[in-house]
Amino acid sequence: MKCPGIWKMLMAAVCVALLSSLQAQDLPGQVSIILLGATGDLARKYLWQGLFHLYLEEVGKGHHFRFHGTALTSTEQGQEVIAKVLESLSCPRDMAPGHCAELKAQFQQLSEYRQLKTPKDYLALSKDIEAQVEHEGLREIGRIFYLSVPPFAYVDIARNINSSCRPGPGAWLRVVLEKPFGHDLHSAQQLAAELGSFFREEEMYRVDHYLGKQVVAQILPFRDQNRAALDGLWNRHHVERVEVVMKETLDAEGRTSFYEEYGVIRDVLQNHLTEVLTLVAMELPVNISSPEAVLQHKLQAFPVLRGLQRHSAVLGQYQAYSGQVRRELQKPDSFHSLTPTFAGILVHIDNLRWEGVPFILMSGKVLDERVSYVRILFKNQAFCVQSEKHWVAAQSRCLPRQIIFHIGHGELGSPAVLVSRNLFRPALPSAGWKEVEGRPGLRLFGLPLSDYYAYSPVREQDAYSQLISHIFHCRKDSFVTTENLLASWAFWTPLLDSLAHEVPRLYPGGAENGQLLDFELSGGHLSFSQPLPEQLVPGPDSAPLPSDFQVLRAKYRESPLISAWPEELIARLAGDIEAAAVRAVRRFGEFHLALSGGSSPVALFQQLATGHYSFPWAHTHLWLVDERCVPLWDPESNFQGLQTHLLQHVRVPHYNVHPMPVHRRQRLCAEEDQGTQAYAEEISALVTNSSFDLVLLGMGADGHTASLFPQSPTGLDGEQLVVLTTSPSSPHRRMSLSLPLINRARKVAVLVMGRMKREIAMLVSRVGHEPKKWPISGVLPDSGQLVWYMDYDAFLG
Amino acid sequence: MKCPGIWKMLMAAVCVALLSSLQAQDLPGQVSIILLGATGDLARKYLWQGLFHLYLEEVGKGHHFRFHGTALTSTEQGQEVIAKVLESLSCPRDMAPGHCAELKAQFQQLSEYRQLKTPKDYLALSKDIEAQVEHEGLREIGRIFYLSVPPFAYVDIARNINSSCRPGPGAWLRVVLEKPFGHDLHSAQQLAAELGSFFREEEMYRVDHYLGKQVVAQILPFRDQNRAALDGLWNRHHVERVEVVMKETLDAEGRTSFYEEYGVIRDVLQNHLTEVLTLVAMELPVNISSPEAVLQHKLQAFPVLRGLQRHSAVLGQYQAYSGQVRRELQKPDSFHSLTPTFAGILVHIDNLRWEGVPFILMSGKVLDERVSYVRILFKNQAFCVQSEKHWVAAQSRCLPRQIIFHIGHGELGSPAVLVSRNLFRPALPSAGWKEVEGRPGLRLFGLPLSDYYAYSPVREQDAYSQLISHIFHCRKDSFVTTENLLASWAFWTPLLDSLAHEVPRLYPGGAENGQLLDFELSGGHLSFSQPLPEQLVPGPDSAPLPSDFQVLRAKYRESPLISAWPEELIARLAGDIEAAAVRAVRRFGEFHLALSGGSSPVALFQQLATGHYSFPWAHTHLWLVDERCVPLWDPESNFQGLQTHLLQHVRVPHYNVHPMPVHRRQRLCAEEDQGTQAYAEEISALVTNSSFDLVLLGMGADGHTASLFPQSPTGLDGEQLVVLTTSPSSPHRRMSLSLPLINRARKVAVLVMGRMKREIAMLVSRVGHEPKKWPISGVLPDSGQLVWYMDYDAFLG
Repeated sequence: MKCPGIWKMLMAAVCVALLSSLQAQDLPGQVSIILLGATGDLARKYLWQGLFHLYLEEVGKGHHFRFHGTALTSTEQGQEVIAKVLESLSCPRDMAPGHCAELKAQFQQLSEYRQLKTPKDYLALSKDIEAQVEHEGLREIGRIFYLSVPPFAYVDIARNINSSCRPGPGAWLRVVLEKPFGHDLHSAQQLAAELGSFFREEEMYRVDHYLGKQVVAQILPFRDQNRAALDGLWNRHHVERVEVVMKETLDAEGRTSFYEEYGVIRDVLQNHLTEVLTLVAMELPVNISSPEAVLQHKLQAFPVLRGLQRHSAVLGQYQAYSGQVRRELQKPDSFHSLTPTFAGILVHIDNLRWEGVPFILMSGKVLDERVSYVRILFKNQAFCVQSEKHWVAAQSRCLPRQIIFHIGHGELGSPAVLVSRNLFRPALPSAGWKEVEGRPGLRLFGLPLSDYYAYSPVREQDAYSQLISHIFHCRKDSFVTTENLLASWAFWTPLLDSLAHEVPRLYPGGAENGQLLDFELSGGHLSFSQPLPEQLVPGPDSAPLPSDFQVLRAKYRESPLISAWPEELIARLAGDIEAAAVRAVRRFGEFHLALSGGSSPVALFQQLATGHYSFPWAHTHLWLVDERCVPLWDPESNFQGLQTHLLQHVRVPHYNVHPMPVHRRQRLCAEEDQGTQAYAEEISALVTNSSFDLVLLGMGADGHTASLFPQSPTGLDGEQLVVLTTSPSSPHRRMSLSLPLINRARKVAVLVMGRMKREIAMLVSRVGHEPKKWPISGVLPDSGQLVWYMDYDAFLG
Repeated sequence: MKCPGIWKMLMAAVCVALLSSLQAQDLPGQVSIILLGATGDLARKYLWQGLFHLYLEEVGKGHHFRFHGTALTSTEQGQEVIAKVLESLSCPRDMAPGHCAELKAQFQQLSEYRQLKTPKDYLALSKDIEAQVEHEGLREIGRIFYLSVPPFAYVDIARNINSSCRPGPGAWLRVVLEKPFGHDLHSAQQLAAELGSFFREEEMYRVDHYLGKQVVAQILPFRDQNRAALDGLWNRHHVERVEVVMKETLDAEGRTSFYEEYGVIRDVLQNHLTEVLTLVAMELPVNISSPEAVLQHKLQAFPVLRGLQRHSAVLGQYQAYSGQVRRELQKPDSFHSLTPTFAGILVHIDNLRWEGVPFILMSGKVLDERVSYVRILFKNQAFCVQSEKHWVAAQSRCLPRQIIFHIGHGELGSPAVLVSRNLFRPALPSAGWKEVEGRPGLRLFGLPLSDYYAYSPVREQDAYSQLISHIFHCRKDSFVTTENLLASWAFWTPLLDSLAHEVPRLYPGGAENGQLLDFELSGGHLSFSQPLPEQLVPGPDSAPLPSDFQVLRAKYRESPLISAWPEELIARLAGDIEAAAVRAVRRFGEFHLALSGGSSPVALFQQLATGHYSFPWAHTHLWLVDERCVPLWDPESNFQGLQTHLLQHVRVPHYNVHPMPVHRRQRLCAEEDQGTQAYAEEISALVTNSSFDLVLLGMGADGHTASLFPQSPTGLDGEQLVVLTTSPSSPHRRMSLSLPLINRARKVAVLVMGRMKREIAMLVSRVGHEPKKWPISGVLPDSGQLVWYMDYDAFLG
């Protein structure tokens, strides 16, 4: 069976057509399957059985098969191992034992072990296959190389396959890869590039065995077959939250050399749980039997994932872990690992379907039970008029309504799809699925089992058997494409980086964990519900806590200085801005606020967007202090930052928002387009006396403020209200309010944050009025008020 | 005790100061309380007891009292009734019987009955009071008139009080009014104006007895005393929903002559439940002991209430009601009342604190239990890692968290404030409130009583006693001001109008109601959860149902016509626009959509905003087809409609929104400001070939489209892309895309809805290409497609 290029359309149709044309030819075709690492754990436990399963499925359908187990092990030793494995293979329960024995014997005869080590070995394998095919009067139609080997071996093997072991023209090559696929985005890109130099995308099959699990594989078909019921429900208006969970009871003992490198996020979340997440969140293609359409829609789920931040995660580590690492990796007694064995992650999806719906990903070792599931909990949008004692459980719309894709284990003990009876009766393919039998007393997710429509597979099947069958049948959508893999790493890597030095919360393990690991969503962040029990004796180098300090009130350059820890400082500044806004709107009916770009204000924007309910946005005008000469939709644009972090979350009328006209007549900051004049005119027309109610400034490490840089020929004095300037850093061209205009404001707030600002803050505290050298020193409102907001890092170092 | 003008600040302080200065004077003061309707039901049941309660509270504090019961009844009859009432008065349980008897005797002596009918009677009463005061060597400090009379009597009584019974200079007047205060906004305004011609605002005390209920009166103090805990919780980020509920078991028998006029919304929701709603929703004043601050903040809660629409309500009527009306009001057997005895209402509050949080108001007669409460249910934002069997009820953050202001009755049987133990331990004034005793087995709102911190008043007090005391102590915030009353009627009247002909769902009453009245929130609307059991025999004039028709596909003016019922038509149009958008973005990376104003597109905007998750808004440019020459923030502006109904709900980047420049340099559509040229240039710069991807038009009853009116000298032909035109209706000046520009579009959709369009639709179907006479007939895209979307009303009449 030949799979055409993955990105060509209509693949399924082509696949079938080729199949028939091949079948129509004279010589019967042979597929060779080469299992590398054939004596390893995974191969012995799952892969040989999967190959046998494929054989049982396909035997008699016109293809011949040969199975080559290979490894670095010597031929003799390997043959011994393989012989045992082949002996232990099992047939489906419903197959007659005689028939099973016969097929098993055939399979054993078609399977051989050989050592595969040097380029010569690969060449020899290739020659042998060709010779055997010719000898048996067959025609080779394809080779599957299944790499069940550690990732460091990939590149060598790939080179050898590519150079010495490709099948001849007209026959296809498929190479199956097992995770890990890199350690972060960079290493994954590197690995992908290397593999890409040997294989075409359509030749590679990256396995995530979760995609072979029956319930996971059922998510899209379920969404498809229940479109009528789900169409109105599968969105932010109806979904309360989505939980994607894999709980383990085992620990990492014996595997710490691997685990210590990876941790739970790389081990479980980046791959398994992310795959499941995308299956739930993606837009459903019209035709889910098209692998291309599925892969394309799945890929489109990534760019709308909101970037993860340090506070998107809570991390834990079971108490015994560091000891296990010390023992297994011969670390000194002082060694404490930071590797998380538990993580809860909050994912938000920024599209209209899912905006605001929390997707909670959670996985951990040594928890109280082994279970994995996806739970889609719907909002309660009903009001039940009768008192609750009259509610009828399976009908009342006031009781929980949810869909559970129960991937495995747990109290239920088997894979299943559960739909609350007060939701709808789901359609599932009657061939493969049967209703779960009643189990009195069993409660799942807050409801008795009898309150669900519950279906489980008629025949439970191992994930690897499923996947091996999918490889043979070109079901590319059951595998992870390079694009998909890199998109996932691109999503996870910034979080992994920011968590690198985070100390995970220690937990005792099992039921003893109590509520220690419970966590909480608030304002887009996660945090543990329980504060840590206080340390009685603080460590010698324990950092001072925010509560050890008071908000400092002092003077800086003879103006009021407010100094605090960042969070408090931002809260204080936001409060002061709101107070100014309320005052201005009360007195004048409107509030004119000019905002700077950069990173420090982002936290301020978020604070204003989420914490200030009485802010009179409807009467606020937003102006820009400065802008880069890039289109407004450029990610570098200050306006774009304002839009992302503030405008999207509050209701400022469109006509009260005043971006700087840096982009006119398709040109950027062209003098002759008179953008500065236009902005100055807009200000004069709308702002009384061109006196803003509040101007928010920052201070650069070189003493610049707004986009007024040292030695700037424009903007530091003179009549012009708005000027074009040049920045020492790219993009160089800027538009900026001038110092004289800034100094007309009723209030100017300068926000200075971070250790990087410490030196300039020290310096500027001592200099006089020297705007040419340090533009910030020229900020001195004519009759308004100047207030400095500095965090302790900037102020105290 | 004198209350200064209600709107002056610092009243509490002044009140106390006056009190002391008065006490320092020589003559002791007397307050006369005149109870009109003193022999009526309300007076006998509550008001006399309330007056006695006031007397018990105030006796010995320096004031003298006289109580005058009055009515139209003859003196003799009245005296007889009153004597009985006075005999039955009771003292608080903890008062010694001897002391009680003594005080009761005193009170009886201070109370008298007199007939009050003619102006002369009022004058006589006034003289008698003056004489009595003088005779006893007292000084009159005030008169309270408590009007416990039907509303039709108000004006006469008010006139008489004002002209003949005002106290002399230096003494105050308070007039207490009982609902109903009008039947709708108009009648309430009328009544308020009439009363306003006799009394100053600060003289009037409108009673809503719910404000005297102990738990209702505790809402603001509770919010105030628990600020620290509630500050972060009392908002849309944490509140899931708010339920304001009053369930009754009684029916309206014996009161149908009143009830038939009012119904449940006027009887309960417009007053009691609205008052409670505002106490929960309002911004909390810094100082809640200032009645002015409280009243002002409460009033500010009204303008942010989103307007109610027909679909904001579900209505019911108990089955026996119409029969009772027929019997009591002698109606014919064919009479069926439309008066609702049950209503569920969905209120949304459009401010940053409450946006998106459903406030559900519900009240009904003949339900399964008598209870009233406010329930604030918080969102579950926790994720509990352990399986639920390990959850500890009172601590787990995954179990329901709620605050219940249990106003009265229900299974609990008493007023109480309940706070889930997994929320916080509330502060309540320890003087008046005690913890509720445990009652094993009692479950309230999904939790056992033991899962709550539960407090009830140490001494249950009747609402009227509380209110009478508040009248005496100038607690104006326990009463309904004129502004508050009219704001409430302004909120409810449009709904009442739109429901006037709505047929309520019949319900059997009591527990038999089952789930018949349960209702559901979706997309800002309410609907019953259960569809009505189908009628076996449809009535003779039953209207055809939408499902009786197929979407019609036909031709109109030789272009495709899509015709359907309004909802289907809008859904179809929205779907077609989305499809065009997806196609355009796929091909060109952007979608240029030009939209018309008016009322028909509003439903379309809402449909697009709430039902289309894959709409590529981030790549859509929005243009205006036409605009009125008013500022963009004017409610008449087409742009304002677009902003309210679409832009606020989707994420179109700021720079992709292109309002028409009708307002430049502070002028409207001045030729010399070249707004039309500017818009034409913007279109030319951004839209390839100035060819919009989709233009949405309407059709006026005169055949106009866009703002191109019959005989327009501009815009019907020629080179100009954008033109100024003149409308026959105000505002006359308009800006519009020209016909030649419209005809360059790839697709033009004309939306025509409503019976009013039937004639022009008929006419235009027959005319040729005569844009001068009927501009719509000139819509004929050069190479694009024209599609007509007409609802059956417009198309079939």
